Amino acid sequence: MDDITVDLERAKAVDAPLATALRRLIDAAIMTNVDEEASRAARSLVEDAADLLERQRLSGNSFGLRHTTTGAPAVWGNVAIGLRNPIAPPLTIARDECGRVSTRFELGSAYEGPPGCVHGGVCALIMDHVLAATAHEPGSPAVTGTLTIRFLRPTRLGSLTAEAWRARQVGDKTFAAGNIADEQGVTVEAEGVFIHIREERGK
Amino acid sequence: MDDITVDLERAKAVDAPLATALRRLIDAAIMTNVDEEASRAARSLVEDAADLLERQRLSGNSFGLRHTTTGAPAVWGNVAIGLRNPIAPPLTIARDECGRVSTRFELGSAYEGPPGCVHGGVCALIMDHVLAATAHEPGSPAVTGTLTIRFLRPTRLGSLTAEAWRARQVGDKTFAAGNIADEQGVTVEAEGVFIHIREERGK
Repeated sequence: MDDITVDLERAKAVDAPLATALRRLIDAAIMTNVDEEASRAARSLVEDAADLLERQRLSGNSFGLRHTTTGAPAVWGNVAIGLRNPIAPPLTIARDECGRVSTRFELGSAYEGPPGCVHGGVCALIMDHVLAATAHEPGSPAVTGTLTIRFLRPTRLGSLTAEAWRARQVGDKTFAAGNIADEQGVTVEAEGVFIHIREERGK
Repeated sequence: MDDITVDLERAKAVDAPLATALRRLIDAAIMTNVDEEASRAARSLVEDAADLLERQRLSGNSFGLRHTTTGAPAVWGNVAIGLRNPIAPPLTIARDECGRVSTRFELGSAYEGPPGCVHGGVCALIMDHVLAATAHEPGSPAVTGTLTIRFLRPTRLGSLTAEAWRARQVGDKTFAAGNIADEQGVTVEAEGVFIHIREERGK
């Protein structure tokens, strides 16, 4: 794995603002109504930015699991929570003293499926990540075994919450449940089985 | 809904190349190892590009379902298949004469979960979209009722395929099944129930 400075202060000052700017640009590219000339000029700026960032690029196709200068895990490429990944909303997951996890997030034009609504698959992605978060423990991450999702009604684009909890633990398996809700209540429910692995597996 | 020229030739010439350039830039932002000064310069270009595209922007947070000058549906913001959406790999779905659907796609750094592997939730997103594609019919799109996913082994980032078929049809419900595979075979299996809706619902 290539060497890279993994410093949280620098990441917050430099990498996270770049990802935030890119989230705005992704929305702008979907929702723009400018003429061809302006669109081509924007593309030229995008290519210049990519050229600049690729002057020094990690090899391969994985940012992977790294550790910060203080030893904390840094999965900054992660598509759900990675602070370097513009696709990640990103989710910021809170955990209460009972192990229940929750997150508030905003989904805009970039996450659309049916008109005006969050793509069902994006709801599935969020449920997978949030339910799995109930199972993760330091040194013992968990991978999804099975995931079942029920779509109760369309989830409108906008401000949303998700929560999950452990239903039970059987050996190395965590059975978790959770949901996504908008201001009118629950839109999606999910159950999943998550399997604990040694840190080495899946690298 | 704001008026916008929805012309496939223009979209292929202008919008799709912008989304392609943005996919490269998303990867570059995750994998870059340049110094702070270069990263800040890239962010400045990103902000200039967003300013340019936002000079004329559709209102709200939905590109929605539009129709091209030839009458074809244009869900160009869709997170799985939208040609304007840089988050979409994008999936290009083929359909054989028996209604079986399939797609080949490449997932890189932007779709990572466990190190080196596709996020389980991204696999769920792809399964949702591909299984639903077996149910869609002109004038009668389908929404996901339930979706169950079994993760057989990690899905490595790289070249992948997905396929799905109708298992059975009961009234307005399509029962579909499918999988994701890499070069070594199937990594993820899924089953889902998809419910046909009138075109107006969900808008």
